[in-house]
Amino acid sequence: MSRKKKFTDTTIHELSVADNNDKDDCVGDINMDEKNNIQRTHRFEVDHLKIFFEQEMGAREVDYGETMAGIVRQFAAELSEEETDTPFYMVNLSHFARQYLRWNHYLSRIRPFYAVKSNPNGFIIRVLNELGAGFDCASVEELDVVRDQCGSNFDCASNIIYAHPCKPVSQIHRFRNAGVQFTVVDNKDELKKISVYWPEAKVLLRLRPDDAHSLNPLSSKFGASEHDCIEMLRLGRKLNIDLIGCTFHVGSRCCDAQIYAESIRMARRIFDVACSNEFGYKFQLLDIGGGFMGHHSEEPTLPKVAALINNTLNSLFPENEGVRLMSEPGRYFSSSGMTLVCRIIGRRIVTQSRLNQEILSSPHSLSPYSGDDTDSDANSIEQDEDDAVGGVCDDQPLPALAPLPAFSWAQQTYVTTPKIMWMSDKKNIYYINDGIYGTFNAIIFDQKTFITHYLRMSSPTEDNEKDISGKNEKHFKSVIFGPTCDSLDCVAHAIDLPVLNNGDILWFPDVGSYTCSSASNFNGFKTTKYVLFWNK
Amino acid sequence: MSRKKKFTDTTIHELSVADNNDKDDCVGDINMDEKNNIQRTHRFEVDHLKIFFEQEMGAREVDYGETMAGIVRQFAAELSEEETDTPFYMVNLSHFARQYLRWNHYLSRIRPFYAVKSNPNGFIIRVLNELGAGFDCASVEELDVVRDQCGSNFDCASNIIYAHPCKPVSQIHRFRNAGVQFTVVDNKDELKKISVYWPEAKVLLRLRPDDAHSLNPLSSKFGASEHDCIEMLRLGRKLNIDLIGCTFHVGSRCCDAQIYAESIRMARRIFDVACSNEFGYKFQLLDIGGGFMGHHSEEPTLPKVAALINNTLNSLFPENEGVRLMSEPGRYFSSSGMTLVCRIIGRRIVTQSRLNQEILSSPHSLSPYSGDDTDSDANSIEQDEDDAVGGVCDDQPLPALAPLPAFSWAQQTYVTTPKIMWMSDKKNIYYINDGIYGTFNAIIFDQKTFITHYLRMSSPTEDNEKDISGKNEKHFKSVIFGPTCDSLDCVAHAIDLPVLNNGDILWFPDVGSYTCSSASNFNGFKTTKYVLFWNK
Repeated sequence: MSRKKKFTDTTIHELSVADNNDKDDCVGDINMDEKNNIQRTHRFEVDHLKIFFEQEMGAREVDYGETMAGIVRQFAAELSEEETDTPFYMVNLSHFARQYLRWNHYLSRIRPFYAVKSNPNGFIIRVLNELGAGFDCASVEELDVVRDQCGSNFDCASNIIYAHPCKPVSQIHRFRNAGVQFTVVDNKDELKKISVYWPEAKVLLRLRPDDAHSLNPLSSKFGASEHDCIEMLRLGRKLNIDLIGCTFHVGSRCCDAQIYAESIRMARRIFDVACSNEFGYKFQLLDIGGGFMGHHSEEPTLPKVAALINNTLNSLFPENEGVRLMSEPGRYFSSSGMTLVCRIIGRRIVTQSRLNQEILSSPHSLSPYSGDDTDSDANSIEQDEDDAVGGVCDDQPLPALAPLPAFSWAQQTYVTTPKIMWMSDKKNIYYINDGIYGTFNAIIFDQKTFITHYLRMSSPTEDNEKDISGKNEKHFKSVIFGPTCDSLDCVAHAIDLPVLNNGDILWFPDVGSYTCSSASNFNGFKTTKYVLFWNK
Repeated sequence: MSRKKKFTDTTIHELSVADNNDKDDCVGDINMDEKNNIQRTHRFEVDHLKIFFEQEMGAREVDYGETMAGIVRQFAAELSEEETDTPFYMVNLSHFARQYLRWNHYLSRIRPFYAVKSNPNGFIIRVLNELGAGFDCASVEELDVVRDQCGSNFDCASNIIYAHPCKPVSQIHRFRNAGVQFTVVDNKDELKKISVYWPEAKVLLRLRPDDAHSLNPLSSKFGASEHDCIEMLRLGRKLNIDLIGCTFHVGSRCCDAQIYAESIRMARRIFDVACSNEFGYKFQLLDIGGGFMGHHSEEPTLPKVAALINNTLNSLFPENEGVRLMSEPGRYFSSSGMTLVCRIIGRRIVTQSRLNQEILSSPHSLSPYSGDDTDSDANSIEQDEDDAVGGVCDDQPLPALAPLPAFSWAQQTYVTTPKIMWMSDKKNIYYINDGIYGTFNAIIFDQKTFITHYLRMSSPTEDNEKDISGKNEKHFKSVIFGPTCDSLDCVAHAIDLPVLNNGDILWFPDVGSYTCSSASNFNGFKTTKYVLFWNK
């Protein structure tokens, strides 16, 4: 099946399923067409990082051609018994390196400053630092993790931008003391704050582009209009602030590459005003922000966006003008570099054959189910669904369940709320060990669609019915719940899966961005285990 | 204004404002009517805990009559300069104690096991342990925090229930090794798991009540029907499992107290079947779960719910039968015991007078605003709103902003997306230091309505216009954003506030449950500071 993700308003709680033999799912995380194309031109080799990956970071090499399903199986098989029901992330370090090399290939004039918020784990920061990226930090916690990971020789002045337009004073102190020099501002109150608490800062004006075509627009929260910019240029002069350029953010996952071009034009206008005689600034830095897709197959692809950006830059900010260029990609680096591996830790199976089998083998046959259900076609879950409410609403009370006069209540409840009572009854239910408060918070906060793969760690049982052809396992509507006690913690409301067992694996690729970074440990559950690998 | 909260489907991102002089907002968190009533009958004294609160927990005593606004001001004034822009929680330890005493008064037969998930902080666990509550733990992390807080003499066997119906095997080992003996089960797979990994466990069957009237129903995720229970009784016999009773959960914030009565009747039926000759169990424990409101003024109040529960229990589970009774309240204890104190760390003010003032004082008067806006009535934000789009769509380009042929784009953008561009422009915007990824995650995950109070830490400035009477400050439609770089991190989209300054306080009472417990530290922001107090 296609791995292309759809991002629409209706994708909340929508998942696709891929089985464990999906050969398209290569570790390289590039679809075949593009991969062949890239291989013809350049391979983005990372072999030279072998020692760094293996000796410094403890990653293991896997074969380039190995499917992700194969790697999941391999790693899962090696877990100790105690670890088997602990969810974990598989991290492909070479993905981060390849994305960096790819960036440099397509956007060679623009130095990327990795947006730490998308995934603040040390491994990605170390790889990107090793290769020469800078870092976009929005808080002291992000500053600290970058400094911790990058060692004592790390130069905050040239490698970090404090890219938050609204800064707590206490955090300004910390960034300033760390030697950071670049920051951004989008309003006059903030300029006044800078003039008092960080007068030597090199400040970029954050513009407000038209980001209506981005999946996570940011313009309602940040960014100054052209008019605001003029006001800030004036105030900046008065306060003697070292304004040195412009930045903008087209919004996360920008679907229309033209917005980059339009925003660069807007920046050019501000550059010209700032450098005019009226203001006399020497603008020298343009930051084109983020908004790049995380997966190679998502449109617009990096090559397409890059072509447009390069053309616009070469026209408006030609190299000989000497304006330095930077950017703040986050998910571009982090998204496809991580895979989540979960286990089924509980289940509630309602396939018809199982129901029949249990009722037929039961000496206690006075259940309200007994009339209809034993006659049902064992292969027809649909028929079962049609019959279900009738079965429950059967007027024959179960003697053993009716010791009290109040028994009529039970029937009444079933009748008045049959949907609530039966919607879940008619689906197989699985409970896995990560959920909506953990990695899957991205369903809510990042409108992310997760692709579900399953991997059987047990033999199929009698529950695993075949379809009409007799070859393939029959799939049933299933619910996937997360591990917490909250019913909102539902990962998928209706997904087609064969009958799986406790201990079987569900795994989810491309979970590197805005997942672990915004996960809580509600109810004491959080995925904290990371397994590192790389490939050539 | 009334502090009564409304919980409806439409309350997401709805906030109410109360100013800082709301005298109804007593520390006791009991409305006046009920408080007078309670004081007449019993005062739920906590004076005897003075040494425990102050010497063991480091809490400070505040006067009983002091308003929460007064306490917020008092604590905020004492912060060091570095701490002023750090958000913090104010924790009223005596609230937890009063709630415990209140529970014992109204529901004396039922021992509460505090649902740790609602707020796993050590301070609430210690207070409730000191008074004699047990604990409902759903994960090893919750088990560990309870054991850490309750000291080496703490008896897990009698004081903890592992109340999760679907348990990872590794966590079963940990609970078993800690000496816990009570747990719950709602499906046959889980019974098999118990028989292999925890054969000596004392197991409660979790029933599925009709929770359609609860604000957070749980029945779609957990709970067995009466039919399922019979199946489990049979399987339990076969596997020699020590089934000892029933539990149910009516859903979080149960609006219809009758559900407790109906669920107790359902439990009675299962008790009778289990203890019948066919199965021969000796059922001895009934756990009525949670679902109790967190605030005294919310309906149904504890006295009302308790009356119904007590009547039903006395009828169906009379004291002389010897069945032990327990419950799992969470928000009942934790909700009203915490207040969040935030600071405004950034702002973007668009009141008319300010706009006029800046434009009039500006030598650079070629802005597209200049035609309409300088004529506007300085006191009329409404007029400003009406004129705004017209002003921007003015056909006069700003020469300084039009050095490129592409300028026509800017106009076009404003015209095609005026709503997006102007909705935020027309409101005052405040950025505070906690948000939707932090405490306010409860807006999404707990359908919580937050009450907003403001507290001025600076003198009102010329921005603070008066209303027609000349007495009260004029309020403006305002947006409150959280501290992260994400535009989704919006606490309130449209709330009426006067003009506030950076450094002023917004504070929010009743934030003790399902707030910090499910907060992430996305982008490096999380409220982690707690200030403890108590009152007599």
